Order: sequence, then C-alpha cells, then structure tokens
Amino acid sequence: MGPGPSDIHASVLAAMAAPTVGHLDPYFLQIMDELQTMLRQVFQTQNQMTMAISGTGSAGMECCVVNLIEPGDSMIACQNGVFGGRIADVAVRAGANVTKLERPFGEVFDPAEIAAAVDQHKPKVVGIVHAETSTGALQPLEEISKIVHDAGALLLVDCVTSLAGLPVEIDKLSIDAAYSGSQKCIGCPPGLSPVTFSTKALEAIDARKTKVASWYLDIGMLRNYWGADRAYHHTAPINMNYALHQALRLVLNEGLEARFARHRLHHEALKTGLAAMGIKYSVANADHCLPMLNSVLIPDGADDVGVRKQLLNDFGIEIGGGLGPMKGKTWRIGLMGEAASKANVILFLGALEHCLNAQGIKPSPGAGLAAANARYLS
Amino acid sequence: MGPGPSDIHASVLAAMAAPTVGHLDPYFLQIMDELQTMLRQVFQTQNQMTMAISGTGSAGMECCVVNLIEPGDSMIACQNGVFGGRIADVAVRAGANVTKLERPFGEVFDPAEIAAAVDQHKPKVVGIVHAETSTGALQPLEEISKIVHDAGALLLVDCVTSLAGLPVEIDKLSIDAAYSGSQKCIGCPPGLSPVTFSTKALEAIDARKTKVASWYLDIGMLRNYWGADRAYHHTAPINMNYALHQALRLVLNEGLEARFARHRLHHEALKTGLAAMGIKYSVANADHCLPMLNSVLIPDGADDVGVRKQLLNDFGIEIGGGLGPMKGKTWRIGLMGEAASKANVILFLGALEHCLNAQGIKPSPGAGLAAANARYLS
Repeated sequence: MGPGPSDIHASVLAAMAAPTVGHLDPYFLQIMDELQTMLRQVFQTQNQMTMAISGTGSAGMECCVVNLIEPGDSMIACQNGVFGGRIADVAVRAGANVTKLERPFGEVFDPAEIAAAVDQHKPKVVGIVHAETSTGALQPLEEISKIVHDAGALLLVDCVTSLAGLPVEIDKLSIDAAYSGSQKCIGCPPGLSPVTFSTKALEAIDARKTKVASWYLDIGMLRNYWGADRAYHHTAPINMNYALHQALRLVLNEGLEARFARHRLHHEALKTGLAAMGIKYSVANADHCLPMLNSVLIPDGADDVGVRKQLLNDFGIEIGGGLGPMKGKTWRIGLMGEAASKANVILFLGALEHCLNAQGIKPSPGAGLAAANARYLS
Repeated sequence: MGPGPSDIHASVLAAMAAPTVGHLDPYFLQIMDELQTMLRQVFQTQNQMTMAISGTGSAGMECCVVNLIEPGDSMIACQNGVFGGRIADVAVRAGANVTKLERPFGEVFDPAEIAAAVDQHKPKVVGIVHAETSTGALQPLEEISKIVHDAGALLLVDCVTSLAGLPVEIDKLSIDAAYSGSQKCIGCPPGLSPVTFSTKALEAIDARKTKVASWYLDIGMLRNYWGADRAYHHTAPINMNYALHQALRLVLNEGLEARFARHRLHHEALKTGLAAMGIKYSVANADHCLPMLNSVLIPDGADDVGVRKQLLNDFGIEIGGGLGPMKGKTWRIGLMGEAASKANVILFLGALEHCLNAQGIKPSPGAGLAAANARYLS
C-alpha cells in the first residue's frame, strides 16, 4: 500500500516465471503485438507507436524527453512535485532551454498560467505530470492541452500513477507523448515503462537534425524492432513482458470503467475512514485528490518513521513517506491495482489506529473502520 | 542455444515469481547488498561501485559511456563486430570525439595498433569488446590494458557475453568500467546489466564539469541508492533483482573455475562434433574462439533461415543468425549458463545433421555426434 510497486496478482507472477524464449522468437513477437494492442486500449489511443520501454518509469520519462528535444529546443516543465522536477532535470541534460513553472507541492496548474508561459516562451514541448505520485495531486489536462496545441507545441504527460487507475485519454486529450510504469495501477512488477507517441510527435522525431542523445531509448530504432521490420535493437526483458502481458489481460478483463470505479470506491472509503480518525488529505481540493495515491497529513505528535516501521513490521503494510518538502509531513497510501480492495482499506485503518495509539494518539476507537465500512454499504 | 537469452534454471524463474516488495523495503535492501557482494565475486573485483543497471546490456553500455564521457572528450572505440560499433554510436551521441578503430568481423585487435592510436589521439577513454557476441571472437586484454593505462586513459570493456563464462578479471586487468548482461552466462532472464566502476573511473565522474547526459543512468545518483544513503532514485525492477540474486547464487555455488571449465568442455565437444561434420568456425584463430558463443560458417548449399526455422520448429532449438556483414554467412550457437550441457551439444548435433540432410547436405551419418561423445569420454 505504498506509492508503488503495488501488489501483484498471482497469475502475473506465474506468467513472469514462464520459460524465457528469444527476443526474435515467433512466440515473443506475438506477445509484443498483443502487448501493443492492449496498451493502446489502456492508453485509449490509436497511436501506432505504443509499446513498453525496457526500463522503469523514469526510463520512459527520459525516452519521451530525449526523443522530442534537441539541444537548444525550448521546453516548459511544470513542477508541482518531485516528478515534474525530474522532467526538468532530464530536459536540461538533453540540452533543452528549460523554463520551469512552479507550484507548491499538492497544488495543480491553472490553464491561465500555462497559457501565459506558452505565449512568452514559445516552447517546442510542454511537460506536465497527470498524477503526481509525490503529492497525490491530479492535474486536469483538457484546457491545457488546447492551449499547448493552439500554440503549436507538443504535450508530454507523465501518467505513471494514473494509467489503468483513472482515465488517461491520450487521443481525446491530444497528448503527444506519454509514459507510465508497469508497477502502479497496471499491477505488474516494476521494470517496464509503457509509452505512446502521437503522429505529430513522430513527425517531430523524424524532423530531428541531431541523433537522439540516448541510443537505448531511440524511438527511431525501437520502431524498427516493435514494427513490421523486427530489426534487432536490444535484447528485450522477455519475462517482464510476459508479466505485463498478463497484467494487461487482467486490466482489460475487468474493464477500464470498472477498474476506475473500483479505485474510486476504495479511495472514497479510505478517505471517509481517515476523516473519522481526524486525518486530512494534503491536497486541499478534493477534486484534485488522486484515488490511487492518498497523500495525508501526518497527525500532530505522530512519529513518521515510527508509525511506518510498525505498520511494516507488525502488520506487513508498506506505506510511503513524503518526498522533497513533504518529507516528515505526509504519508502516501497507495490503493493501486490489486491493492485497491476493501480488505486492504479495513486492514489499514485498524492497523493505523493501533499504531497511532502506540504513540499516545487516540482517535475515537473503531471510528475509522466503522465509517469506511458504512461507506461501502451505502 | 542462441546468442542469449540463455536457458534459465527453474529456481531462478521461481525466485523471480516471489511477491514484489517495495524498493526501500529492508528485505530488498538486503538483496541489494548481497547482489553487490556476489557481483564483485563474479567480476573478480573489489570495486565498491558494482551493481546492476535497471535495463538490458545496452543500457549498461550506455551507462558506462555517458558517465565517463563529457561533450568534447576524446574516445577510441574498437570495432570488430556489431557491439564495438554500438559503443562508438553511443559515444558519439554522448558528444565524444570518437576515433573508430576497425578490424574485420571475427578478428581481434593487436596491442600495437591500439598503442599507435592511443599515442596519436590521446583519448580519455578506450572502449573495447571482450567477447564479441556478433562474431564469437575473444579479445585478449592484458597488453591493451597496460597500453591504455600507461597513456593515462580509462579502459571501458564490454563483458556482456564473457562474464561468468570465462575469466573477467576486472582488478587484475585494471579495467575501469565494464558492463554485462544478466541473460548470457549468468543465466538470468534479460532485464538487468551488471556494471562495475574502478576508483579511477569514479574520480573521473566526480571531476565532470557537466551533468551526465542520462538521468536514468547517472552513476552519481545511483551510488546514493546503492550506497549507504539508500536515497530513492528510481523504482528498481524488484523481481528481476530476485532472479539475478538466485542466478548469482547458482554461479558461485558451482564456482567460477568449475563454471569456466564447463563452458570450455562443451565448447570443445561441440567444436569436435562440428569439425567431424565439416563445419568450420568463423574465427580463424582457435585461441580467439569464444567457448559460449560458437560462430560457425554456414555450409555451402544450406539455407540459413530454412535450417534455423527447422531447428526451432521441429526440435525447439534456437540458434542465432549472423549480424551485420555476417548475415547469411554464419550461425551463432550459444552454450551459455544452463545451456552449456552435454545433452544440448548432442541434441544439437543430431538435429543439425537432420536439418542439413533435409537440404541435401549429407555429412557422414552420425559422425558429429560420435566425435563429440568421444571428446566427452576422452
């Protein structure tokens, strides 16, 4: 129940343990085709160039940035958390002239400030985080996408935590490049980063005057392996791809809408339970609270590390601490993929009450659990 | 029996399917410590900075290059196969002034030509491939290492195919940076790239004036996660690390010397069997033939793809075709890790004879199998 990796379904672990075949084996090529088809469904896109990068989410971030950016290109990076800051760092290394827009951790960006910045800096790319794992904030993208595209720029979006847990409508929102991670709401172990690139993004890549800074993440070459040519690029992480294949099957068997509703339901129940214990979310605006990543303010008098250690050691529950300026101020409770369940919500609320009691903090006994349960029954 | 991924021991697959824990979980931190200790043994080094990059071998290559190279640095890349060429490509992208030394595929470099090039170009880094997977050639490194270090340069070595199959003596050879892949002689699925950096290499990294081009592969930050700080960098591929941990246990339980001898034995038997069938190695000098990657000349009249397809479809045996200029000219037969066994050698020789017969090529019936078996019994 941390900020990821999330719990993994037994069938995904079993799929990962199937015998390793070669990266050009006909069976594996079929797996790749099916992965692309399923990833397009989850990203809600028709983008041909939709596949999984052979690295974790940060590799997907770097892939999107370094393919779109050439040295000297102008880029706006929106930073309202750790991962927006990481986009800026990656872009600077790729040689971009980066303008960093900043918002305090936990807030989201207003379309008007994006419009002003785009107008001023005329960027080639605007990078923004859809679901900021470090703060639990959900960034609305519809108006921002229109602003970015009206200005002729490309929109690059971090969907690491949102994909398969809430709608990531790549085509409807005209997102040009997006990356995610296998280990959050998709419910696969970490190690792969699903990415998707629009036709406009691919045109920008084709128009590059310089080679992509990273050989490993060069979309031009990756297209030849994932496309009809099947030209050898690197040895794909075969078993990781088996696992992602099975995880995506579970996602689509459940259905995206049902999966989103499930994440929402358990978030609502957890939030109701925590409220009954006097615990508040760090994202002030409830509309901007992520369902799968619940960032809450640590109650006064509670020892951050002490509570998390007891949760782990006595109850086998991992939750995350705050990152960056939120360190020591927030806990991050994940309800991602398999972990988004009533059993986990009830277990967590009971365990948390116990751990708070151990620190002399006494919420009304059983109130959190009872409130959450009532929410489920309502 | 291709050029990798190799066959995986059941216990490694089982380890990979263990429940996924968090990347800062105390259990996982212990796995990381043990991984480092075991990797040092396999690399035969005391290098503190020895760990596994969260990507396949090419990511490890890129990691070594981009951390050592700053834009404008001089680098010599030795190309006698596909992977030496890849080093040059990666280095150019990192901004190096690359001097490419070339040798025909299948040959190795002579210390004298390296000495002349080092003398002329005064490189910061010399990159060379120890075991060229595309050609089956083994590059002796002892004299070259001395030349490179006498000139004050750093030696970067590709050990993707050699590590755990033949001696890779990092400290004895004073190699400054080396990378490998999990999926060759180590016997783990693809997805991780063991790397090691010498103190001199780390000093060069510390002395950089510019940020490393890749955020994902930045050794400065990776040191803080793999070191005592345990500072979060990226979400490690947890289950892949479980698999590597178990694979390394098997390597060290067998013992490095015994493992090298096993690879050598099955190579000798295969070679003896192939010779009895009239099939020659593409590396002319027997001293430079890799034991784990047997690159042989396709017999006159044999259809490259037809034979490989029949081996796969009728016998479940994958072998590799030639890469680059060797395409259509060579087959690459892997005897790596678990796959280096008498059963595989005998199976392959019988199956190959059958497939050659199907094409009207008739080696003396049973001669390959009999010769290999005699070699085993000698």
